Amino acid sequence: MNPGEALTALRGQYPKFEPGEVWLVGAGPGDPGLLTLDALAGLIQADIVVHDALVDPRILALARADARRQFAGKRGGKPSIAQEDISNSLVESARQGLRVLRLKGGDPFVFGRGAEEIVSLARAGVRFRVIPGITAGLGGLAAAWIPATVRGVNQAIILATGHVTDDGSGVDWSALARTRQPIVIYMAVKNLDSIVAALLAGGMTPDTPAALIASATLEQQRIIISTLQQVAADARVANLAAPAMVVIGDIVRTRQELLETYARCAE
Amino acid sequence: MNPGEALTALRGQYPKFEPGEVWLVGAGPGDPGLLTLDALAGLIQADIVVHDALVDPRILALARADARRQFAGKRGGKPSIAQEDISNSLVESARQGLRVLRLKGGDPFVFGRGAEEIVSLARAGVRFRVIPGITAGLGGLAAAWIPATVRGVNQAIILATGHVTDDGSGVDWSALARTRQPIVIYMAVKNLDSIVAALLAGGMTPDTPAALIASATLEQQRIIISTLQQVAADARVANLAAPAMVVIGDIVRTRQELLETYARCAE
Repeated sequence: MNPGEALTALRGQYPKFEPGEVWLVGAGPGDPGLLTLDALAGLIQADIVVHDALVDPRILALARADARRQFAGKRGGKPSIAQEDISNSLVESARQGLRVLRLKGGDPFVFGRGAEEIVSLARAGVRFRVIPGITAGLGGLAAAWIPATVRGVNQAIILATGHVTDDGSGVDWSALARTRQPIVIYMAVKNLDSIVAALLAGGMTPDTPAALIASATLEQQRIIISTLQQVAADARVANLAAPAMVVIGDIVRTRQELLETYARCAE
Repeated sequence: MNPGEALTALRGQYPKFEPGEVWLVGAGPGDPGLLTLDALAGLIQADIVVHDALVDPRILALARADARRQFAGKRGGKPSIAQEDISNSLVESARQGLRVLRLKGGDPFVFGRGAEEIVSLARAGVRFRVIPGITAGLGGLAAAWIPATVRGVNQAIILATGHVTDDGSGVDWSALARTRQPIVIYMAVKNLDSIVAALLAGGMTPDTPAALIASATLEQQRIIISTLQQVAADARVANLAAPAMVVIGDIVRTRQELLETYARCAE
């Protein structure tokens, strides 16, 4: 039985990938089990898979054996492929009549530059479909037993990027702190010292719980519990593999509460 | 071929659901295609599925024919089942040695009260597993061609609930407005007038683009483009089915840009 037959057995009809279409697909936070059924349907039908560095090889292995794999991401130290070149390549493959699957880690629309890609596709008159994935921030939190929202603790959750854009602009971290809502920071480690300083300036207390999460949802996942004032130092000591995320807020306490409760049960 | 064989053919090993365990699973925003492989693995193995009102019947149909279905949500007008009763019921079923799948719309940790449920399970010494789902806010945005983040437009996205808690406390909307980042509001319609007033007081301009999205990702999905000053009136006129979400911020323009670009292509 081939994967297409298996998927048909599981869910009957699934969306048909027409030649000349581009599907922009989120691969989720890492664990292949967090892939969606529609993402799988896309992988099974695609003629070419254009993927980022963060996509797990076990996910790429779900594509047809004869599908072309094209790498379009950053690879340690080497300059990354220009966004314009990636967009042009997607358009070109679609115009050749291929079924083009653009596969991105997490969700393609959450800090993934998916917006630029679909605008380019629309301008070229190429039809596209967007299949969201579980964003790394929220999936990583769940795997760490840190609920994004806890009744009585928070009524909002902020997802932010620690990456500073070329023109030096970025998030107003002090304004985020003043909302008194927890913050999940993607690509957090590089600028963590200045982010922490701005959060403190915004009135967030130094002992606010914080967690560092690297390789979220994978076997090699690492979770380090810390505080706002300590987290940048802890990140340096741990020398975490990128991309690591940081979550800051009282929701982090839930993880400790769960671990302690289980420890008491085991006594 | 049964669903278990199909899933095995697709992804080989999948996580084993042990008797007496509770899996807290996100069903995603609505469309069954946005279910994860692990959620499906859970449904195939579960002895009992305890689900909310927002879970699509096509998703429930993926569970074993002989699995018990237990409804634990709000049903039009009638009082909802108390959270404590749901938690107790999960513990009781697990103690009977059943494989208990707790299935929630969206992501169980994003405004889903999943946190309370796992704390109760831990206190009772019941083992659990959390399988995140695509949260309705982000999945709904993607289906509406509104990227959660657009390079050069925003560096953060705020997910907030429009629901006011029993003690009257809620989000400081003015503080959220001052971050100048887009806001996705879950359960937005009921308190929309007061939310809009607070966002305006926080300095958000009246002509900020806004979108109302109901029945996100489903066939009957409705998307209404509006502005901050107009959105509450538009929601009343449209008489949207709950639960509807509202997104406010310049990211909404991307949808219009895509639609206009395609319209020009078709000329």
